[in-house]
Amino acid sequence: MKVIVIGGNGTIGRPVADALAARHEVIRVGRTSGDYRADIASGESVVRLFEAVAPFDALVSAAGLARFKPLGELTDEDFAFTLANNLMGQVNLVRLGLKYVGDGGSFTLTGGVLSTEPVRGGAAISLVNAGLEGFARGAAVELPRGLRVNVVSPPWVSETLEEMGQDGSRGMPAAEVAAAYVESVEGRRNGETLDARDFGAS
Amino acid sequence: MKVIVIGGNGTIGRPVADALAARHEVIRVGRTSGDYRADIASGESVVRLFEAVAPFDALVSAAGLARFKPLGELTDEDFAFTLANNLMGQVNLVRLGLKYVGDGGSFTLTGGVLSTEPVRGGAAISLVNAGLEGFARGAAVELPRGLRVNVVSPPWVSETLEEMGQDGSRGMPAAEVAAAYVESVEGRRNGETLDARDFGAS
Repeated sequence: MKVIVIGGNGTIGRPVADALAARHEVIRVGRTSGDYRADIASGESVVRLFEAVAPFDALVSAAGLARFKPLGELTDEDFAFTLANNLMGQVNLVRLGLKYVGDGGSFTLTGGVLSTEPVRGGAAISLVNAGLEGFARGAAVELPRGLRVNVVSPPWVSETLEEMGQDGSRGMPAAEVAAAYVESVEGRRNGETLDARDFGAS
Repeated sequence: MKVIVIGGNGTIGRPVADALAARHEVIRVGRTSGDYRADIASGESVVRLFEAVAPFDALVSAAGLARFKPLGELTDEDFAFTLANNLMGQVNLVRLGLKYVGDGGSFTLTGGVLSTEPVRGGAAISLVNAGLEGFARGAAVELPRGLRVNVVSPPWVSETLEEMGQDGSRGMPAAEVAAAYVESVEGRRNGETLDARDFGAS
């Protein structure tokens, strides 16, 4: 399969791309690095990417910026930014990608456990994580040509916790999170939210 | 309690307001009718409402426009409209209302079963229904002063089905849907999604 990995050089995207590269042709896409560049908040940028690499068999999004702040400090702009990037940025990969993906292809988006396991400061992220799951459930029932869409929900990732100066052992190593993405790409699931903790090391 | 019901003359909002009026002071707010007028898609309009009626003890939102269309026909504008109205319109009632609600007060928003029970044409609505539930879970863990926020998830409502020319007996009468809203306002729940079918006739 030809698999596009958006955010393919990121904390989660890199091990996902590495795991998929064992059996597939992987195209790594980033905002500032990768085989191709794209900004998922820009529909034009995403269409340029698809025009350049189409057709493809699977798309994995490990991208989507979001703002983490106490509820009372989240501004209109924080919500607009988080919805435009993390939520609609990923939704639009599916909407725009429909024209370029081959029969039986798949889309795998990235949510997160804040959807159902909230923490202080995460209200906007809980919103977009849950919204993506709802979109995947809704889109799954009407995708044509055997296409599929799923959301992978990673827990706190060890590497991210370490970057934040916290104890990485409290999180899941990104290389193990990758297994859920591989399942979404290679399996038959559709409209599901895959909790990465249920899949473990690949 | 003083309870604001946004959409208080609508299919669901009217019986909710009627049920609450038995024990509370109810202020009915609509876009075009009611004790006060407000458009939840406009922050300025919402602030004007709160300045006029504050302080209040509970707010119920039975409002929020959304677009129902096949996935391939949903435009950027359909998503933007649905997110601005149904999703951020309701989220902003909470964000803006924090300043005007009394200690121990509550916010009750309206989602829907398309969040987890998708149908063709409902992808944008599944997204916003689920997103609202995620926001409520996230906001609940950091609301100050004993404040609460919940989402009521109505099934297809009999009156709505009849308006669409379908068999109303396949849905739940709006007067019965109201019971879940009353539970959210008068009970102790916080961060929950109340499936209206679990509450029944009030």
